[in-house]
Amino acid sequence: MRVYNFSAGPAMLPLEVLERAKDELLDWQGGGMSVMEVSHRGKPFVECAASAEAALREVMSIPEGYKCLFLQGGAYGEFAAIPLNLSAAGQSVDFINTGDWSTKAIAEAKKYVTANVIADEKASNFSRVPAQGSYQVSKDAAYLHYTPNETIRGVEFDYVPETGGIPLIGDMSSTILSRPVDVSKFGLIFAGAQKNMGPSGLVVVIVREDLLGKARTECPSVWDFTQQAAADSMLNTPPTFSWYLLGLVLDWVKANGGLEGMAKRNKAKADALYGYIDGSGFYTNPVEKNARSWMNVPFLVANPELEKPFVSEAAKAGLTNLAGHRSVGGMRASIYNAMPLEGVQALIDFMKDFAAKNG
Amino acid sequence: MRVYNFSAGPAMLPLEVLERAKDELLDWQGGGMSVMEVSHRGKPFVECAASAEAALREVMSIPEGYKCLFLQGGAYGEFAAIPLNLSAAGQSVDFINTGDWSTKAIAEAKKYVTANVIADEKASNFSRVPAQGSYQVSKDAAYLHYTPNETIRGVEFDYVPETGGIPLIGDMSSTILSRPVDVSKFGLIFAGAQKNMGPSGLVVVIVREDLLGKARTECPSVWDFTQQAAADSMLNTPPTFSWYLLGLVLDWVKANGGLEGMAKRNKAKADALYGYIDGSGFYTNPVEKNARSWMNVPFLVANPELEKPFVSEAAKAGLTNLAGHRSVGGMRASIYNAMPLEGVQALIDFMKDFAAKNG
Repeated sequence: MRVYNFSAGPAMLPLEVLERAKDELLDWQGGGMSVMEVSHRGKPFVECAASAEAALREVMSIPEGYKCLFLQGGAYGEFAAIPLNLSAAGQSVDFINTGDWSTKAIAEAKKYVTANVIADEKASNFSRVPAQGSYQVSKDAAYLHYTPNETIRGVEFDYVPETGGIPLIGDMSSTILSRPVDVSKFGLIFAGAQKNMGPSGLVVVIVREDLLGKARTECPSVWDFTQQAAADSMLNTPPTFSWYLLGLVLDWVKANGGLEGMAKRNKAKADALYGYIDGSGFYTNPVEKNARSWMNVPFLVANPELEKPFVSEAAKAGLTNLAGHRSVGGMRASIYNAMPLEGVQALIDFMKDFAAKNG
Repeated sequence: MRVYNFSAGPAMLPLEVLERAKDELLDWQGGGMSVMEVSHRGKPFVECAASAEAALREVMSIPEGYKCLFLQGGAYGEFAAIPLNLSAAGQSVDFINTGDWSTKAIAEAKKYVTANVIADEKASNFSRVPAQGSYQVSKDAAYLHYTPNETIRGVEFDYVPETGGIPLIGDMSSTILSRPVDVSKFGLIFAGAQKNMGPSGLVVVIVREDLLGKARTECPSVWDFTQQAAADSMLNTPPTFSWYLLGLVLDWVKANGGLEGMAKRNKAKADALYGYIDGSGFYTNPVEKNARSWMNVPFLVANPELEKPFVSEAAKAGLTNLAGHRSVGGMRASIYNAMPLEGVQALIDFMKDFAAKNG
């Protein structure tokens, strides 16, 4: 029996995607080999990779003038790779700090640049986003880095920051493909695959071409965006299975209405869950309403001793991985694209029962 | 129909491993989720990861005092990560150059260190290895880096270099798990997984603990061996599916006689193939006999116009990916652990027929 898996990542994948991967795991495209076994430089995989890229461009409406890269090292690796590619030694970089992942990105960037935190929501205990225009982007910044969705505390921007021409960098690991986005507002978007795109081990980088060609000499070659762009992300062996799975996920997104379809589906799930939490009198969500994430929904109960029973009883009911991140406690339901509305409704039903028994 | 796949990597995997992965792809360990969907920090995956590490330690007889790391970025990434972890700025590093991968490692290291090539087989067109004792390891070198097996030209060391106490680094991407190795002679061993260990996207690093703690401040955190060792390789989300598959591959190695069993199997395959080539009067292998690889067997025909027909006719006969590397041409049969002796015999039969028709 398949469960409803609320894991924050690696996370639930569409059942249709897993079924197709299973069907062709021993014999892909009739070639007598698994997709895991074929050379990344052979025609079948090169076409598979190109097709996934074309689907990504179509689904996200990526304009001309952007390169899509399929790399290794995760979003955390990009926290180093981005300053090494887009800034010169001694240059400064702006950050907006809205939670744990922005904080880690800032710490990593400080190895390579001067990091200016131009807006910091730490004082609000990361329960909101700064308002558009409430901060000033530095005129000499190499770029502005922000985190459109913070996975751990469930804080999501409801706007794209204006930068006055400074390149905008978005860490979209936990929000990519969840709704339409105007890529042209960004200098670079990156995302670890393991939430909305496929299995872990792949990080997607979408970068405006005029930002290429600036890698520092000490940038590792496999993370040099310019070299990888020139090599179609095959300077070295890419994570072929994850790339293939991404293609299947994108086919599923297309078959389900594209990003408009995903947005509709995700808004319905989020509205249902937040609506129930707010009216429950038992559960609370600490995030300001305009900044509530569609993807990661943390919630608390008044008595923390009920957290463990909640998580273990939910798991017995087929609702798994509902513990909050170890750094913040509480509960968290990650409801990425692959989670159907039925899963969220099953969760709400369970929450109602649990509240009735323990209220 | 499954084919005999002679790809240099990603490469053939044991059929039993693929069948097991397929069986449990939708429901792993009865948890109602794919192994791709579970949190890397949940108990089931943490146990799976630890079990793969324990199997690696058992199979390779890794002594106490070594850490095993499961990272991203491939062996090419390690060409940067190793100098960043094991050398100070301004320090020098020794290299033995026996082919394309040593050459790339040297070029990448030069971003971070002074690279001394203490033995260079370029003049021999990379057709042999330097004899033990024919080169002098620098007394002040941070380490000596060499490539026990060169995948492209099929050159393999028949000994482990003596270094007089300088840490020895071995890029074992295409030879790891193919035969027993005395790990205690090495400071660090690394290997991309996609030849003998599983799918691409995972690189294994086995490092002596006294070499930890020396990472430069500019070393990216996800490649900092010390941080990753402290975090059991989960500083960030690891490539979970590749790690899981590695565990299945190691179970298969254990069930097939461990590294002694692999060595017996691999020697039989290599002896059969080189024996046929040398006696054929039609095919040639350019590598000196003591340095011939057990894993990658390049071969030539006198008339290069026969190369394309050879490769395409072989593919029709179910013997795939026999083209030589694009940088050197010719043919190459990669016969990693997963290739059975029957596959090599089928190749030899085909080669005989082809020679008879074209000789």
